Amino acid sequence: MVRQERAARTRAALVRAAAEEIDRRGYDGTSLNKVINAAGISMGALTFHFSTKSELADEVQSQGSHAARTVADHVTAGSGPALQAVIDLTLELARLLEEDPVVRSAARLARERPGSPAWSAAWLPAVHSLLAQAQRDGQLHPAVLPETIAALVVHLVAGTETYARARSVTTDTARASAVVQLGRIWQLALSGISPREPSDGPPTPRS
Amino acid sequence: MVRQERAARTRAALVRAAAEEIDRRGYDGTSLNKVINAAGISMGALTFHFSTKSELADEVQSQGSHAARTVADHVTAGSGPALQAVIDLTLELARLLEEDPVVRSAARLARERPGSPAWSAAWLPAVHSLLAQAQRDGQLHPAVLPETIAALVVHLVAGTETYARARSVTTDTARASAVVQLGRIWQLALSGISPREPSDGPPTPRS
Repeated sequence: MVRQERAARTRAALVRAAAEEIDRRGYDGTSLNKVINAAGISMGALTFHFSTKSELADEVQSQGSHAARTVADHVTAGSGPALQAVIDLTLELARLLEEDPVVRSAARLARERPGSPAWSAAWLPAVHSLLAQAQRDGQLHPAVLPETIAALVVHLVAGTETYARARSVTTDTARASAVVQLGRIWQLALSGISPREPSDGPPTPRS
Repeated sequence: MVRQERAARTRAALVRAAAEEIDRRGYDGTSLNKVINAAGISMGALTFHFSTKSELADEVQSQGSHAARTVADHVTAGSGPALQAVIDLTLELARLLEEDPVVRSAARLARERPGSPAWSAAWLPAVHSLLAQAQRDGQLHPAVLPETIAALVVHLVAGTETYARARSVTTDTARASAVVQLGRIWQLALSGISPREPSDGPPTPRS
């Protein structure tokens, strides 16, 4: 029993150390030697749990996707307005990306390892179904397509990942948290940048 | 003269091959052997131009920043409305990120190499000054802060970089181009997601 607990702690420390290394240096830049040094664990103990770097990365991705799916399930199960649920989901993802290197590295690994499922597969289906609901409930401007809001969400979450990673290595504490920053951006996206009654029409993208 | 032209072509081929490798695999994942194989150039010719991987990466970053700065200067020099210029600048950056692996890898390198200047340093100052102008010209909703639009821009450009990189390795031609996708998102951000006359007020971020 004590041995099992110790093994579980060792395994968790390895996953955490691997996640921190991968988050900073990427899959290719991560060596198992650096991981065991950071975790203070022997190579023998590592290979007892994970026989290859690939297996260790699989576990990081699995845990990072699980965390995002848990948030998506929780938000989807709520009874509030669907558009608000989409916003809450992205703010929860921002919190995960800010606080949890396992989630940040899972998002990074999904891009860097060919053939692995996108990290967004854990939460994007929930966004699509909530946006369809928001449209049915009249919560969207008639000219706005749910697919475009979904594209905005994907861009904002990717931007948040970049922002949170940069913030994790800086000592500049004056930068707003990823969650606060994203909340401000949503406020702006909901009401719109242009004045409500423009004299000569809002500017539009030309391409 | 012919020799100088050949040297310039070799140098350009090396920078291009390095950019494509770095764009896909990151700085740590890129080896000079892979770069010379991709460029079809000998290691001797590479070291004639760049004595280290670091020097080669410096050149990629320099060219990628120069391309972005050129776009920012061009847009800033225009005489149209300032808010439209910000949108045009981001769409031009999206086009660069979509079409030019040197620009994509410059953006990536700036994050992965400690101590190197942010890629956004080449264009974000122009965004800030244009947004201040847009505010003075009454092009912004009174409740919207220029800093928040700047944060939106940074998130959207980071999201576009991720989108363009993913699109560069996919064979799924049904995905919208990064420029088209960003144009749609701007349209939405300008007019806002919520209906103009909501019966019970728009949803707001809770955190």
